[in-house]
Amino acid sequence: MLIILKLGGSILSDKNTPFSVKWDNLERFGEEIRNAMEYYKEKNEKLNLIIVHGGGSFGHPVAKKYLRDGKFCNMQKGFWEIQKAMRRFNNLVIDTLHFYDIPAVSIQPSSFVVFKKDSLIFDLSAIKELLKRDLVPVVHGDIVVDDDDNYKILSGDHILPYLTKKLNVDLSLHASDVDGVLDENGNVIEKIDKSNIDDVLKMLKDSKGIDVTGGMYLKVMEAYKMGVKTIIFNGNKRGNIYNALIGNVMGTVIIGD
Amino acid sequence: MLIILKLGGSILSDKNTPFSVKWDNLERFGEEIRNAMEYYKEKNEKLNLIIVHGGGSFGHPVAKKYLRDGKFCNMQKGFWEIQKAMRRFNNLVIDTLHFYDIPAVSIQPSSFVVFKKDSLIFDLSAIKELLKRDLVPVVHGDIVVDDDDNYKILSGDHILPYLTKKLNVDLSLHASDVDGVLDENGNVIEKIDKSNIDDVLKMLKDSKGIDVTGGMYLKVMEAYKMGVKTIIFNGNKRGNIYNALIGNVMGTVIIGD
Repeated sequence: MLIILKLGGSILSDKNTPFSVKWDNLERFGEEIRNAMEYYKEKNEKLNLIIVHGGGSFGHPVAKKYLRDGKFCNMQKGFWEIQKAMRRFNNLVIDTLHFYDIPAVSIQPSSFVVFKKDSLIFDLSAIKELLKRDLVPVVHGDIVVDDDDNYKILSGDHILPYLTKKLNVDLSLHASDVDGVLDENGNVIEKIDKSNIDDVLKMLKDSKGIDVTGGMYLKVMEAYKMGVKTIIFNGNKRGNIYNALIGNVMGTVIIGD
Repeated sequence: MLIILKLGGSILSDKNTPFSVKWDNLERFGEEIRNAMEYYKEKNEKLNLIIVHGGGSFGHPVAKKYLRDGKFCNMQKGFWEIQKAMRRFNNLVIDTLHFYDIPAVSIQPSSFVVFKKDSLIFDLSAIKELLKRDLVPVVHGDIVVDDDDNYKILSGDHILPYLTKKLNVDLSLHASDVDGVLDENGNVIEKIDKSNIDDVLKMLKDSKGIDVTGGMYLKVMEAYKMGVKTIIFNGNKRGNIYNALIGNVMGTVIIGD
């Protein structure tokens, strides 16, 4: 069983406060992931895990300093400053996971990933070998070069679908700061599949066709297209990460086509 | 002009003192590299630079903790501990280079490199794009997975010939702690080419065919095979890094075949 778990930037840090960490959440995530590993071990089932985290309050404020009208400038300094900020954040995440005996290792995308127009150059050779050894690759959002003479932020929302597709992931988990995909009345839509996908996507855009849900439209569409079981759930609630990892969480389940 | 410069572990740190840094050398390297960049700029010549550094006193003592009879053990903890130690070292090196306005960026091999029996999987896409933008990739020694269910140390001596070959490097510089390749009387051999390569290689092994020069045999052989102009020189001496970068240093020049 290969599970990919995305820890959204907003549940790991306060985006309004640069370099802040939600330590209570981070510690809890470590504990719950450890408990889920024990659950699989007791059942004699193999669990392979990949963790993805975004830039949170570390990557965003530093990246912003170097953005002018959507283009990165002064990257002779900026590339390293963004790399270093993300290393700090990633170090804190991985050290905490190790405190709970999770064999986490770091994958720093800026070292080798290139953003192309409709795809990524992202060699997975090392990640595959690390998974064979039961290590837990922790891939973080990062600054990367593109093929158009500039730079791009590679976010968790880029990394998740790429890895899910390429690595034959069995279950894709998005721990976010909402309870799932909400309908017009604010209730969680429990299941999205071919019977309601069109209605849901329509609902997630307003009358002008603009995504009014902070990226939820794209998340749902990407998840549906992947054809891999995906659960969007609230990572701020105690027990949810554990329950998600054992396949039993309240949220929105997306069954792709 | 693309130059690759290897800063040997022994000139950056004291190998006998874990986590030590030779700050005087490191600061001087920053200053001399900056001066060499100015030299090329004034001549209106383009200089692209890649820097490689080994594990020094950061990587080695931590890696040693996890080695038993030449095999790595307990790498559920060890992989990250070695990664983290190398990140600390690499952060110090890159921060110092930035103090001298050298646009250094980090390449962390453990994220994507795989050691194979006779070769490496080492995707250079991002490094090539970084060079196009006149950034200076700093590649460090690191722990990497191999294709044989274990792990290996990827050292500067692996990275240098690989990058030199694959990136069409014009000049390959080894800053070490000796004045060059020494003959039987302790004098520097100024030039090694096809006229004396066999004699030099013979001299570098003792009567039993064992390399008695701390890896110099392998360095000379690798450099000669590559067919790229290589200079082995003493990085501890003031001015040598600058002079090497402008192609004018005292040491051993190897002209390959």
